[in-house]
Amino acid sequence: MLAATIEKATHRLTRRSNERLVLRTIYELGPISRAGVARATGLTRTTVSDVVEDLVGGGLVSEVGMGPSTGGKAPILLEVPADARHLVGVDVDRDRISGALVNLRGEIRSRASRGLADRDGEAASGELASLVLELTHAAQEPLAGIGIGAPGLVDTATGTVRWAVGLDWRDVPVGPRLTELTGLPVVIINDSQAAAMGEWAFGRHDPSSAMIVVKVGEGIGAGIIIGGRLYTGDAAGAGEVGHTRVVDDGPRCRCGGRGCLETVASLRAVLERARELVAESPASVLAQGPLTRDSLRQAFETGDALARQVVLESARPLGRVLGAMIGTLGAREVVLVGAMTAFGQPWLDAVRTETRDSALRLLVEQSSIHLGTTGADVVELGAAAMLMGSELGLAFPV
Amino acid sequence: MLAATIEKATHRLTRRSNERLVLRTIYELGPISRAGVARATGLTRTTVSDVVEDLVGGGLVSEVGMGPSTGGKAPILLEVPADARHLVGVDVDRDRISGALVNLRGEIRSRASRGLADRDGEAASGELASLVLELTHAAQEPLAGIGIGAPGLVDTATGTVRWAVGLDWRDVPVGPRLTELTGLPVVIINDSQAAAMGEWAFGRHDPSSAMIVVKVGEGIGAGIIIGGRLYTGDAAGAGEVGHTRVVDDGPRCRCGGRGCLETVASLRAVLERARELVAESPASVLAQGPLTRDSLRQAFETGDALARQVVLESARPLGRVLGAMIGTLGAREVVLVGAMTAFGQPWLDAVRTETRDSALRLLVEQSSIHLGTTGADVVELGAAAMLMGSELGLAFPV
Repeated sequence: MLAATIEKATHRLTRRSNERLVLRTIYELGPISRAGVARATGLTRTTVSDVVEDLVGGGLVSEVGMGPSTGGKAPILLEVPADARHLVGVDVDRDRISGALVNLRGEIRSRASRGLADRDGEAASGELASLVLELTHAAQEPLAGIGIGAPGLVDTATGTVRWAVGLDWRDVPVGPRLTELTGLPVVIINDSQAAAMGEWAFGRHDPSSAMIVVKVGEGIGAGIIIGGRLYTGDAAGAGEVGHTRVVDDGPRCRCGGRGCLETVASLRAVLERARELVAESPASVLAQGPLTRDSLRQAFETGDALARQVVLESARPLGRVLGAMIGTLGAREVVLVGAMTAFGQPWLDAVRTETRDSALRLLVEQSSIHLGTTGADVVELGAAAMLMGSELGLAFPV
Repeated sequence: MLAATIEKATHRLTRRSNERLVLRTIYELGPISRAGVARATGLTRTTVSDVVEDLVGGGLVSEVGMGPSTGGKAPILLEVPADARHLVGVDVDRDRISGALVNLRGEIRSRASRGLADRDGEAASGELASLVLELTHAAQEPLAGIGIGAPGLVDTATGTVRWAVGLDWRDVPVGPRLTELTGLPVVIINDSQAAAMGEWAFGRHDPSSAMIVVKVGEGIGAGIIIGGRLYTGDAAGAGEVGHTRVVDDGPRCRCGGRGCLETVASLRAVLERARELVAESPASVLAQGPLTRDSLRQAFETGDALARQVVLESARPLGRVLGAMIGTLGAREVVLVGAMTAFGQPWLDAVRTETRDSALRLLVEQSSIHLGTTGADVVELGAAAMLMGSELGLAFPV
């Protein structure tokens, strides 16, 4: 009786693992024939055919034509249609929640967002739920689930945000709540870690290198990929560098500390600093209207002295911390993403210069520091990639 | 012909892998019977008996008595004698090269050392070779090989020191030279990484945690253990935090940078700073004689104001960098080793205080920062542990 139960369970596990293997093989190598899948996976032709039948039935795999004959009958080719499943990817930022419907190739099919103004706590949770419902209702294809990138310390195993300073969330069970609301699988992950997964899954990079992805937006955090996997540390805290102290007796931070990197190098900090200086420099173009991220960028691009000073000064403490991270991890690839990357090459150059002076030259020289290649949706893409891994075994096999 | 060659090679590999498995099992679980080894490893009784015969013949395993009978004949118990092999472990520091003969349980059987004064380059290489020969000649037990911990960027695969700032070594093939000299296997590894392996193999720690070991001596560097293995980064540079910049326009460092952590928090920096201040404070007990690490420690312990100021100030930038490392790695366990740990609890407390203020509180609170538990020989022990792994499959199975 027990033996039969165990055998059944084992059979189910094997079946599921074979399904994932076949699906991933077709996703990565397709268009490919059943015989090709058997060769690539080491599974028998019969097993492959059985599994493919189910995958075709579920719409995850399509027959897309005939391959060249190698003597006998021309083989039918299989592939995973990019839109076989859609995923909801969400980027919870401190001032805005942005979401997207993403397909299996990381293409965005639609977007929605909610401004948070200064709402936090339960109000922010409510906006997140409303946005997720809007996207799930808008979906035209079967949904595989919902991936959320949220700032702060996130416990992915329980789906809980342990502490998000800017949102005033402490121990908020975001995952279970959204699963209850939608009936879909939900994964939640730190937003910078999501950005790292987005760049790794859909961006251009050296696959043999470790990769540090630093998100410099309203807040600052990093995600670290080692050996093709997200490295989360002992309690999911790896990459929490926004609260590294960089200024003695510096400005008070929302985390309770002083002089944190976020207080001098984030977009929020840069805007605050610009507002302070504008009050003293009425000649700056920035004094002409409300100071927003867009007006600051325009002033920066037209060479306004104050805008350039504020933005480029913020690059120094960031470079300092990047130096410490490169020294710690010995990683060859550092990718910058987030709102501050809108200041482009001059900001990047300033970050690079300071990083070069902030760690052992030989280490920095063998590192490449560059801007992200997946654009502003990197967190949505990474949250979706995480879900592709956990639900379908794609992108980040688990 | 080819098939036979491959079969032979495969057989040899299997044999070697079984030998390592059996040896490690006896090392970790002994005293243990042959039947016990078979149960623990899944190998057949016959295979275990064959392998054990060879290991006993080679002196790596001894029969040490009879176990309790479980019905039939009482089984013979096996163990790995602690002194079955000795290893040479060497700590190349900036002012002194220290070596030890270490047994398989991390016990030191004898020591030797050479002061470097300010000799570097080829002169330092010569001292290293002379020390290694002294130790290999003194050995009373069969030697498994030589493990070297050296400061700077070390390429373990080729046995080359790529760059050791303090020793003025660039691309020195230490490993090949010592193998030629002694005919023994040699591994060379960064000294802080060796310290991490020493603490991991022979110290007290939480085996489920990641561990950062920071060596604060003449120089400063860290070794990182993730998942029970040394994490070396993309080009062996992980943990090179001594040249993280911590002071704007700070003192010039031997690496070519300015304001590196080593220039303010290493023993060398602390002694230099103390000498500067003593010139201005003739009342300090430090002004009575030559200022050495011993006189500084004595003055520190008797509460001399200048000694306390200099030592405790050096703890601040160190804590700052530890905060950045904890933020980067999310590690729960941070271990401090090296000459500066001689300043004990007051220095440790100052480091802890600054670390707590230098990273997200929640992360630091779940971390433990403590002094190493293996003592001053930690680099020698770690270099030996590395060799135990590569040559015998013990401590760090490879």
